[in-house]
Amino acid sequence: MIGKFEITSRCNDSSARTGRLHTINGVVKTPIFMPVGTKATVKTMSSQDLYDLDFDVILGNTYHLNDRPGADLIAQHGGLHNFMSWNRPILTDSGGYQVFSLSKINKITDYGVSFKSHSDGKELFIGPNESMKIQSLLGSDIAMVFDECPPYPCKKEYVNKAVCRTIAWAKECKKYDNLNDQLVFGIVQGGVYPDLREKCAKKLIELDFSGYAIGGVSVGESDDLKIKSVDNTIKFLPNDKPRYLMGVGEFSQMIYAISKGVDMFDCVMPTRQARNGTITTMKGRYPIKSAKYKNDKRPLEEGCDCLVCKTYTRSYLRHLFNVGEILGIRLITYHNLYCYNKFIKNIRSSIEDNKFELYKSNFIKNYNLVLKD
Amino acid sequence: MIGKFEITSRCNDSSARTGRLHTINGVVKTPIFMPVGTKATVKTMSSQDLYDLDFDVILGNTYHLNDRPGADLIAQHGGLHNFMSWNRPILTDSGGYQVFSLSKINKITDYGVSFKSHSDGKELFIGPNESMKIQSLLGSDIAMVFDECPPYPCKKEYVNKAVCRTIAWAKECKKYDNLNDQLVFGIVQGGVYPDLREKCAKKLIELDFSGYAIGGVSVGESDDLKIKSVDNTIKFLPNDKPRYLMGVGEFSQMIYAISKGVDMFDCVMPTRQARNGTITTMKGRYPIKSAKYKNDKRPLEEGCDCLVCKTYTRSYLRHLFNVGEILGIRLITYHNLYCYNKFIKNIRSSIEDNKFELYKSNFIKNYNLVLKD
Repeated sequence: MIGKFEITSRCNDSSARTGRLHTINGVVKTPIFMPVGTKATVKTMSSQDLYDLDFDVILGNTYHLNDRPGADLIAQHGGLHNFMSWNRPILTDSGGYQVFSLSKINKITDYGVSFKSHSDGKELFIGPNESMKIQSLLGSDIAMVFDECPPYPCKKEYVNKAVCRTIAWAKECKKYDNLNDQLVFGIVQGGVYPDLREKCAKKLIELDFSGYAIGGVSVGESDDLKIKSVDNTIKFLPNDKPRYLMGVGEFSQMIYAISKGVDMFDCVMPTRQARNGTITTMKGRYPIKSAKYKNDKRPLEEGCDCLVCKTYTRSYLRHLFNVGEILGIRLITYHNLYCYNKFIKNIRSSIEDNKFELYKSNFIKNYNLVLKD
Repeated sequence: MIGKFEITSRCNDSSARTGRLHTINGVVKTPIFMPVGTKATVKTMSSQDLYDLDFDVILGNTYHLNDRPGADLIAQHGGLHNFMSWNRPILTDSGGYQVFSLSKINKITDYGVSFKSHSDGKELFIGPNESMKIQSLLGSDIAMVFDECPPYPCKKEYVNKAVCRTIAWAKECKKYDNLNDQLVFGIVQGGVYPDLREKCAKKLIELDFSGYAIGGVSVGESDDLKIKSVDNTIKFLPNDKPRYLMGVGEFSQMIYAISKGVDMFDCVMPTRQARNGTITTMKGRYPIKSAKYKNDKRPLEEGCDCLVCKTYTRSYLRHLFNVGEILGIRLITYHNLYCYNKFIKNIRSSIEDNKFELYKSNFIKNYNLVLKD
């Protein structure tokens, strides 16, 4: 049963679908948005908040957790679920992205990467087996293969090298798939090069993973190129497995990806933007700092049913944010996450009701990147 | 009824008593500890947290609230209760303490103080009438007279001057007592000089305030001198009015003051210490940063029933604090406040059961300023 992915409804006019992915800690209903809990906390939120917000699954960052407090310590607590007191599914990334983006790399071989930790300069080595062992200690429900995500822009020759390594490493990681009830997803790299995406996807599918991610998207390229990378990958992915678009959290891009058959998303946007005072709404974003909200007695988002919107005004939240009170960031984070979950739940319902295309066109019509009011 | 103070029980062996102070937003059961919500938030806590923690009354700082967001803005929300979404009693200080300690003072006269705001250098004037008007705009349940709190050490001549001004200003403030259901408390100053404390107390009592505060304590003097200031003031205060010891939050000093008949306390200790990673327990304090808690699976305080202690380990909270995650400060604040409220509730029960002296001696026997374990 663990690892089973049931498709529960399909859209008539697009490739959008709803599904249920079975993990050891519960069923993940797709399409799903996963808040990012980098260091064993979705920033400012308690696990109770995340239950109240009704999230099914959260993400943890292997690189950071292995750095501090350390995977062994977390294993001594019985895993990340116990450590952070969260009993629903957790997906962990492989650490690959941070190794390549944060650390000082000494050497890359076919076995893995030697690097210096970004936090204390410690010499470390991580390869596919190390990553899987760390993720096993963390005890996540879904682990990701150790991959190389090249930056953008990047020469094709280098991207090809990264794809070859990603494939080689994926072979190692596959040995751990559904071992001790932990699922492993493959990650398709290939940058903006369609033939490399195709090659990577096909090789990974031969390995038959529990799910597939579209990686290397949202690393600095234009929105057009993001969409093309999704298009150039998803067509090769099997229909009966969950598809996860990593790091994409812009509503318009999510809704497009869902129409193409993507099932899972994660992004730091709702939490990071909260720390910058940016309010997410179903109609666009706005900065709470703006003087025009000084005496605005409306909730952060009119019509929103979240606890913050039912309790506090924009004026109060602007005040908290402007005087540097932590409560401001906390309450805005709560609302932003609520809005993300509402967005994805609405999409799920619309697919189930076979009204997704209508929902999508209405949403795009009403949505402005920066809210005008 | 508003302003009525009923004494509901008295200790046989000391001057400790329990009481009920009636305010427009509810009854305050004494002895009481009031968390400090300087800028319209008890730092990191939502109003729902404060309800869950079962606090009866919180404190707001007039100087800071008048600075940002401004008393007029708060009044346009219908007062501080509405602004911060808190429907139980609020006590506001007069702003005097911050005017003298934070701002750049230009001139002090019998009418008030001219100063430059600490935040933007704006030229401001505040005297007894200004302070009362601001507190009226804030709409607190209990307002404090505008007073001068001299620093420690301070020459007797200057303290006498401050006492004279405090008395003169109190006469102005008295006009506002129980006007529009807002109570006003007098503040006894006099530093470490018993005759000045006596003079100030007697003059204020002639004015017949709704309550009396012991001010100018915990401003840098030794513990011995703090105790003496309490002793040298409380004996002059009327029995049938609430007595409020300002700024004192050390458990041993609170319990002593309660034995002498003090009813109310406020202090930033539980919230400020949380931000420094200091855990309050009924047996003493300890720093969560310490390496010895790295793999400690116990709750912050063994036997504590608070949500944080029922959910998380020291190890997890140490991790959050050490990696700079806001959630750590938030959860420690919650526990510290819970502990303060439990402490004061236990004392109330012990007085009601006529077991206060036993509770006091046991508490002091078991309490170490720095927890040993």
